[in-house]
Amino acid sequence: MPKNNIEVCFTPATYNVFENNEAIVVVVDILRATSAIVTAFMNGVKRIIPVGTLEEAEEYKRRGYMVAAERDGIVRDFADFGNSPYNFTPDRVANGEIVYSTTNGTNSIMMAKDSYRVLIGSYLNHQALIDFILKENRNVLILCAGWKNKFNLEDSLFAGSLAGALLENKNYGTICDSTIAAIDLWNEAQKDILAYLDKAAQRHRLAKNGLDDVIEYCHSFDKTNLIPVLKENYLVELSELSV
Amino acid sequence: MPKNNIEVCFTPATYNVFENNEAIVVVVDILRATSAIVTAFMNGVKRIIPVGTLEEAEEYKRRGYMVAAERDGIVRDFADFGNSPYNFTPDRVANGEIVYSTTNGTNSIMMAKDSYRVLIGSYLNHQALIDFILKENRNVLILCAGWKNKFNLEDSLFAGSLAGALLENKNYGTICDSTIAAIDLWNEAQKDILAYLDKAAQRHRLAKNGLDDVIEYCHSFDKTNLIPVLKENYLVELSELSV
Repeated sequence: MPKNNIEVCFTPATYNVFENNEAIVVVVDILRATSAIVTAFMNGVKRIIPVGTLEEAEEYKRRGYMVAAERDGIVRDFADFGNSPYNFTPDRVANGEIVYSTTNGTNSIMMAKDSYRVLIGSYLNHQALIDFILKENRNVLILCAGWKNKFNLEDSLFAGSLAGALLENKNYGTICDSTIAAIDLWNEAQKDILAYLDKAAQRHRLAKNGLDDVIEYCHSFDKTNLIPVLKENYLVELSELSV
Repeated sequence: MPKNNIEVCFTPATYNVFENNEAIVVVVDILRATSAIVTAFMNGVKRIIPVGTLEEAEEYKRRGYMVAAERDGIVRDFADFGNSPYNFTPDRVANGEIVYSTTNGTNSIMMAKDSYRVLIGSYLNHQALIDFILKENRNVLILCAGWKNKFNLEDSLFAGSLAGALLENKNYGTICDSTIAAIDLWNEAQKDILAYLDKAAQRHRLAKNGLDDVIEYCHSFDKTNLIPVLKENYLVELSELSV
C-alpha cells in the first residue's frame, strides 16, 4: 500500500469536499494565471500578492502597487497589465512586488491557504514540482482553477500529467476517480496536446479575444526549477520561504 | 451551428453553475440508484417517491409506505430493502408505490425538479433516452450523482456514452469541456467497460460490502423502453405523465 495519496479536485466549487490541511496543494490555472505567476518569478519578481476581488486589486493600486488584473481574459482599466505571461517582463517585475487578480486562479490559491503548503503549478516548472513533492513525501491534492466553477480541460490535463508522473514513484497511489480520469485524458491528449486543446472551451474564449498567443508557451515543459509558494498572503519562490 | 447544447455536470455540488430550467435534465447514478429505479418500472412499479434524507424515508415508513433506503451501500434498519436493482422484484413493486432514499442519487433528482423535464438515466434505457431527447429537440444537461459531491467514473462514463450518441444528431452540439472529457473517457472505456471500471473507487466500495454483483447488469444496454420521469415530487413512467 503506497504511503501517500494523490487526489485531483476539478473545480474550486468542490474544494471543501477534498480539503486536507495536511496535504500539499498544487494550484493549477494553465491558461493563464499559474503559467504567468511562474513566468514572473523566472523574470525576477520578489513577491506576488494574489487577490480574489477586483475591489481589492483596485485598492492596492490606489496604494501605489503595480497591479495585474483581468476578468474573462480582459485587462481592467485601473490595472497596469493583464494576466498574459508575456506581460510579466523583467523590466516590469524584476525585484518588484505585483498584485494579481484573475477570473479563476487567484481565488483558488487563497482557498487553499490553510493547507500544509500551496504550490503554483504549470508545465514550465513540472519536473521541479515532482522533485519537490517526492522529497516532501506527503499527500498531494491538485486543485484545478477550472472556469467559473466548472471543470476545464487544460487544467485537468495538467493534473493528469502531474499525477501520472508522481504515481511512477512507489510511495504514491490513488483511489480517487478524478485522478484516474485526469490521467486517462492526459494519456490521450499528450499525443498532440495543442491539437487536443482545440476542443477546449477556454481556448476558444481566448481566441475570441485575441489572447491565444500564449497557449503553446503555457504548454512548454520544464523551463525553470522555480516553484512559487504561498507564504502568509503572498507568493514567494520556494528558496525564500525560510529567509 | 447546432440548435441544442449538451452539458455534463460531474457532481451535484456544481449543479447550481449549470442549472438551466429550460433544459431536459438526465440524472445518472449508475451504481446503483438510477439503474434500480429503471428496473423497478420494468417490474411494474407505479410510483417512486425519491427522498433526500433518511429521516423523511423513516417518516414515510411510519405512515405505512414500502421504503428502500441505504447509505454507503448498506440497507438501513427501518427500511424494507436497499438499493440493489435486484431488490425491486415484481412481487415487491408491481402496481405499488415505493419510497426511495440513497447516498447520492435521490438528492440529485430532487435538485433538478424545476427543470423542463427530469429523466432517470441508465444503460438499461439508453436508446429510449436518446429517442425521447431527439424528439423533444431541446438543450440537455446530464447530471451525474457522483459520490458524496465528488466526480465518479461510472456516472461520467455513462454521460459520455449518452452525449456522444446525441452529438451524432446535427441538432446537437457542445462547447462544454466536461462533455468533451466524458466522451473521451467513454471512448477509451467502452472497449472493455467492466475491466475499465476495475479502476473505479465505487466498484471497490461495493466489492468491500459484497454489493458488486450488479455491476454487469447495471452496464447492460437497452433492456427497456421505459423512462421514469419526475412529476411533482414523485417518479412515474413517461407514458403516465399526461394521465
